[in-house]
This record gives sequence, C-alpha cells and structure tokens, in this order.
Amino acid sequence: MTADLEAFLAESAERRLASYHELLRIPSISGLSAHAGDCRRTAEWVAADLRASGVENVDVSDTGGHPVVYGDWLHADGAPTVLVYGHYDVQPVDPLDLWKHPPFEPFVENGRMYGRGAADDKGQVHAHLRAAEALLATRGRYPVNVRYLFEGEEESGSPNLEAWLDANRERLKADVALISDTGFLQGNRPAICLSLRGNMYAQIDVTGPSVDVHSGGYGGAVQNPANALAWILAELKGRDGVVRIPGFYDEVVPLSEADRGQFASQPFDADALAAETGVPELAGEVGYTVPERRGGRPTLDVNGLWGGFQGERTKTIIPAHAHAKVSCRLVANQDPLVIFERLRAFVLQLAPDGVRVGVTLLDTARPLNTSAEEPAVQAASRAVEQAFGAAPLYQRGGGSIPVAAMVRDAMHAPVVLMGFANDDDNAHAPNESMILSNYENGIRAIVHFFDDLATTPLA
Amino acid sequence: MTADLEAFLAESAERRLASYHELLRIPSISGLSAHAGDCRRTAEWVAADLRASGVENVDVSDTGGHPVVYGDWLHADGAPTVLVYGHYDVQPVDPLDLWKHPPFEPFVENGRMYGRGAADDKGQVHAHLRAAEALLATRGRYPVNVRYLFEGEEESGSPNLEAWLDANRERLKADVALISDTGFLQGNRPAICLSLRGNMYAQIDVTGPSVDVHSGGYGGAVQNPANALAWILAELKGRDGVVRIPGFYDEVVPLSEADRGQFASQPFDADALAAETGVPELAGEVGYTVPERRGGRPTLDVNGLWGGFQGERTKTIIPAHAHAKVSCRLVANQDPLVIFERLRAFVLQLAPDGVRVGVTLLDTARPLNTSAEEPAVQAASRAVEQAFGAAPLYQRGGGSIPVAAMVRDAMHAPVVLMGFANDDDNAHAPNESMILSNYENGIRAIVHFFDDLATTPLA
Repeated sequence: MTADLEAFLAESAERRLASYHELLRIPSISGLSAHAGDCRRTAEWVAADLRASGVENVDVSDTGGHPVVYGDWLHADGAPTVLVYGHYDVQPVDPLDLWKHPPFEPFVENGRMYGRGAADDKGQVHAHLRAAEALLATRGRYPVNVRYLFEGEEESGSPNLEAWLDANRERLKADVALISDTGFLQGNRPAICLSLRGNMYAQIDVTGPSVDVHSGGYGGAVQNPANALAWILAELKGRDGVVRIPGFYDEVVPLSEADRGQFASQPFDADALAAETGVPELAGEVGYTVPERRGGRPTLDVNGLWGGFQGERTKTIIPAHAHAKVSCRLVANQDPLVIFERLRAFVLQLAPDGVRVGVTLLDTARPLNTSAEEPAVQAASRAVEQAFGAAPLYQRGGGSIPVAAMVRDAMHAPVVLMGFANDDDNAHAPNESMILSNYENGIRAIVHFFDDLATTPLA
Repeated sequence: MTADLEAFLAESAERRLASYHELLRIPSISGLSAHAGDCRRTAEWVAADLRASGVENVDVSDTGGHPVVYGDWLHADGAPTVLVYGHYDVQPVDPLDLWKHPPFEPFVENGRMYGRGAADDKGQVHAHLRAAEALLATRGRYPVNVRYLFEGEEESGSPNLEAWLDANRERLKADVALISDTGFLQGNRPAICLSLRGNMYAQIDVTGPSVDVHSGGYGGAVQNPANALAWILAELKGRDGVVRIPGFYDEVVPLSEADRGQFASQPFDADALAAETGVPELAGEVGYTVPERRGGRPTLDVNGLWGGFQGERTKTIIPAHAHAKVSCRLVANQDPLVIFERLRAFVLQLAPDGVRVGVTLLDTARPLNTSAEEPAVQAASRAVEQAFGAAPLYQRGGGSIPVAAMVRDAMHAPVVLMGFANDDDNAHAPNESMILSNYENGIRAIVHFFDDLATTPLA
C-alpha cells in the first residue's frame, strides 16, 4: 500500500463514512415488492458512485427483477482481469421492535456501524467503491483489469441473475472472480472462505376447510391443516438432526480426514456461541462437530410457519389452511432442484387424508467449493494478512451466495471468497452491524489483492 | 300462542329487525381488549332493552372483565323460576378479507341475517328480548318467574363468570336454566341439545436464539424452535385421530349402546358435510362415526400456529421463537384442569434439547350432560315442536358453553339447551348468518316453553 493511498484514505475518512451512511439509508429490501423503487434507487446510487470515481462503461441493467449494476476498467494490458461481485439489496427487517435503532437510520457506536446491510453486503460493496475511488484518485489506474457486478436480488435468491449472466457473457470475461460477502471467524479472527453451502427454499401449503370452522362443531370430523402441517414438518428432520427426506444425502461428498482436520483447527468456543445466540445449548446432526455441521454438512430448517388464530387469548377454530417455509442448506454435490423434487415427493407422501397439500420451490443456490491451493486464493490470503496483520484461516461457510456457483459455472474461473464481516454481525437479524476497522482494512485488502494479483501467475 | 301475541309479533316485525341490526352493529369482540368499550356499550344496550320491556331489577354488573347484564320478573307466585342465559359478546372476525360484507354491517339476504353474532349468540339473545317484550306488552306478565343473565365473555371462556355466580347466589335461585346458544341439525332439522363438550385451551411457546439468526451461519448448530414445535405438536395426536397425551382418556365415559343408537338415528350426510366445509373428505378418530366424534368423543386441535418469516418469498432465518394455540374438546367426566396438567407434562417431556418450552392455560370449560327424561327438557321439546312444526331430535353438541356447567354446579338445577341457530351458521367463521325464520320461531318457542313450564311438574 503506497503512502499516497494511505494519505488519501486519511483525508477522505469523514466523507467516506457519510457516504456509507447514505448507502445504508436506502431501504433496498429485495424480497418485498413494495421496495422495488428503493432497490432501483440504490442501483443508481452505486452506478453514480462508480462513475464519479472514473470507472468506465457503467450502466444499470434491467434483469426482469431488480437491476444489475455493471462497470469496468480494462486498461491494464497483460494483467489478469478480476470480476468483483457484491449485492446492494438487503434482508427484510422484521421483527422491527427488536431493533435498538431503526434499521435504515444507520449510526456508529463502539466502533461499529449499525444498520440493515451494514455488513451484508452494502458495507462490503462500499469498501469496493472506496478502493476504486482511492486507486483511480491516487494512481489514475488499477494494477489489474476490473469488472464490477453488483446485483440487487441476492437476498431473494438471485432469481434473474443467471439469465443476465447468460446474456452478458462478454462482460464476464475474467480470470478470477472476487466475492466480498463473507466474514471472519469467532473473535473477529481473519478468514478466507473456501466453500459455501447451497440452498433450496420451498413453501408447504396445507389446505382444509374453505373457511376457518368452529373447533367445537367440527373438531373430530374435519382434518386440521395445522395438525397435518405439524405431522409433515416433524418427519422432515429427526431429533438427531438427520434429514429424513429419502435420498437427501445421496450426493453429499463425505468429509475427508483432511477436511475434518481443517474444521478442528478453527477457533471455536461452543459456550461463547450459545451465549451469543442466547440458546441453552447447541444442537445439530449427531456424529459431527459444530463447525462441521455449520460448514460441511447439509441441514433442514423451518424458516417460518403460520396458520389459524395468532392473536391474544383464544379463538376456537380449525384453521382453513396452514403454511411453512422450509429450506435446506446443501453441500457438494447436492443439486437444489433434485433435493426439491425429493422433498416434494416426501411431503406429498406424508400428507394425511382430508387435506390438500402443495409444495412450491421459492429459491435455489448451488453449493461451491474452492481449493486452498488456488493461486488467487493464496493472493487473497496474503492481501488479508497485509491489511489485518494476521494470516487468515481457511473456513467453510454455512451460508449461500447463489452467484458464487453461477459465476463459477458461467466463467469457468476460480471464485475467491474474501469478505470482511465480523462473525457477530447479526446479518439477517435485528441490529446488524459492521466493525468499522474491518470495513477500513477491507478497503486496504482489496487494493493489496489487486496489486498482488498483478504479479501472480494464475494458472 | 295467543292471537294477540301473534298480532304483536306481526305489527312489530319491522321494528324488531331494525333493533336486531342495531345490536349486531356493535363490535363486542370479548377476546380483544381494544373492544372492551364496545362490550360495555352492548351490555348497556341489552339492559336498556330489558328495562323498556318492563323487566325489573335490571343492572349492568361489573365482573372484573366485561359486565354481566341481569334482570328479573318474579311475580308468578307458585310457578317455577327459569334462569335464561345468553351472551352478548362475539368471536374475533379475522380473516376479514373472506367476509362478503363487513362483519359489523349486518344485512339480510335470502331469508338470512348476516353479520358477526347473528347466530352466536346475539340473534338468540335478541329473540329472548323480543319474547320478553311481546309477553309483557300483550299480557302484562310472564307465566313463570324469569331471571335473565346475559354475559359478555363467553367467547373468551367466561373467565370472570364463575366468581360472579358465586357472589350472586341470590340472583340465581331458579328451578331450571334455559340456555339458547345451540342450534339445529344438518338441513336445519330442529333439535334440542343434551350435552356439550368441555374445553381446555392452551398456548405452547418454544424459544430458541434471542433473535432470529441466519439459517446459513447457524443452521446445524442451533436448535430450530419451529422444527421443535412441529415435533411437539405432531406427537399430541396420532394420524388415527387418537390423542396421545398420557391419561387423556382416563375419565372419559364410554359411549353406551343407547348413546350410539341415538347418534346413529341423527340425520347425517357425510358428503354434504364435506361439500359444505370444502374438505376432500372427513377425518377423525378411528372406531367412531362422525356424529359420535363430534358430539361424544374428545378431540385435540391446533387452533393456530406462528413463528419466523411469514412474508412473501424467502427469508433465511432460524426463528427466535414459535408458538401454537392448542385446545381439546372434552366429554364427561374429563376435567379441563387435569387435562391441562397432563398436556403440560407431555409437552415438556417432548421438548428437544436446545430450546425452552412453556405451556400456558388460556381457557377452560367443563363438559355438560343432561338427560332426555328431564321434565324441563320434555317441555322444551314440546315448545320447539309447536313453534317449528316438527318434534326436535336430541343431539349432543360438539361445542362448549362454559356457563352451562357453571350454572349447573352453582344452581343444582337442570340445564335446558334450547337454541335455534342453523347448522350452517358459520359461527366463529366469516359470513356468519342466522335463518330469519329460526329467529322468529325461536321467539315463539321461548313463549311456548314458559307457558308449558307453568303447568309442568319439574321434579
């Protein structure tokens, strides 16, 4: 990192924070159609910021859903090309009453930026925007060729991105993809992510009587959709944490001894995780450690369920219908579409008499695996060490970034998962936050990565 | 029925319907605290109506919850005393979007009065008010002594009524109780109800992490309260319709051959019931007919459940908590408090590791049985036949009227369940309605019952 770059970051510190606030203030919740305008506004904001820094060919590209922001700088002849990916959309914010401050009124406290998207992923997108600004302001150029791709539907499963990627192959030509949407380990220990779980997200709808009926008059005569839903959900996963969908584990790549060693070497404190999340004790699939369960094994979770009376006191009804959102985190080589079909068949088989049951696919993401031996991963590792003063550990992420596998499959290029979120960032939860020093050093790590890559043989 | 009474009913027909509308317009939902003022307003309305007819000692009596309306007329020396019970409160109205007209804007269509409470129970209370008016206007007296007790918490389980009954023993001195809160059989076949199921209504709360957490980052490490709730609920009742709470059936009085014969003699059309409710087929406890299941056997139903994300599309969380409302209809001699303790113990035993589970009792009602041989029941039977032109069948009701057992236990007097609702009244559901000829002939049946009782030896 050159002295003039450090000087630029120092003199622009206040402006940078104000701009970070500004980006977080737009409520770009991609999953709620009422926020479609906010998503577009955020895309325009990001595009304007890229243009102001000197990034070229910037445009806000329609996808059928929320737009993709693209921009490039391709004047580093002979140097490799990096495709940078991030997402400007955010998760919904309910339950709102658990936020100490409103989610879209960001504020700084104890060295953290609080607000929806502070870490996932607007803070990391903003770090890339500031790295671009710093490089072009101080050097007038990048050490490598760079393409930016910021999407607005990641938190909704990127339903339109794959089609956009197919239609924009020319814009994807790159030697490596850099995704900054992951984080560090417990205790804010720097880490590079080697794998991501895939995802399959479905909804189960159970329908009984055409309207809610009196549980006195009809109890015992009419099948109850809420009881039926419970019977179905209870069978999907055992109390031992093992998913019971027939064939669910058929394509799972078993953990090798080396894998298990890597998991075992990660810093992990079960009591701290239980205390942080507020649970009486951790729980999960028998036969695996907690880090293995989170990063190396598939799961099934009910993400939400509802039906019938949910108000104060009592209402004596048999509900007309009951519903659940159910998702599976997947590992290599599970295919989310195959898993959905197996779930669907199993649910229909579990449906009792007297109700109608439907299963709908809402979202998919394929799992991703990258080797620690990959030269670009090694470059990222050095960049993080330079910026944060500690060599990163390699981890396997529990979450899913649909684009990771899409980009890998579309580009046939390695995907580097270099992200800077803290592990207690409350992503997807109330009071999301980003440690500001992670954000600041993230900017430095991005610059280091570009510099390192300019001299690293990639293949 | 004397000619002047018929003439009075004819000349007051328009005024009567307008008054019925007026009563239905007040949204007296006892279960929602926001409607406490509406409940009081309804009580005042009923009291004013009784006073205007000439009923004496009318007052609106505080209970700690919604008020009780009391009034009497005790000048029939030597004749028996009848305690008339009804309730002026109504069920909640959600889901509002399924109502063809707003629930508190009553309207008449195809010979039916539509609106929340039209049948359960404001329409029947109103029939009693009009019978009082007609008797006192045309004869200046009742043939028997009458006490009125209209409560405002029936749809919330009458939590304060028992204490009020204890504190007002003098006002309960009666030879027979008449409750008009039941209905006719399929096809609007006149019926007298001999028994009512009791009720036990509880809430199950499952708590996991202190906030919703990311299902990617924590899936496999943290127990999921929604999955845990499903495991618990699935065990409470088998797919065979048999409740699995240990000891649940210990005090159930088995159906005798005579009981089963009575059930078998009821008109019942399974296809019509399935079509009316919109279910693909009926379902219930193995080994019993549908009428037996509804009237003579206990049940368990999930009345509502909720937790986690319930919005559009997807949110990838493990919910912080999940909840269910669970109730059991009970038959003699099941004690709701005993059943609650057995449920509670079973639920706590079913709770998996990693979550906290709580069970709260929300409501109880003891079951009621009356003999068809009871002279007052015979009098009611004759009154219904006179008014409706067909001898009523005896049925056993699936619903619960908490006050029935309370009154029986407080008064040591027989309870007559003579109600006039049609079986397709949508009580507790959207588009509740009362067939207007049932309402009109209900007024006549009440007068006949009083007249008959004046000459019937009760013991």
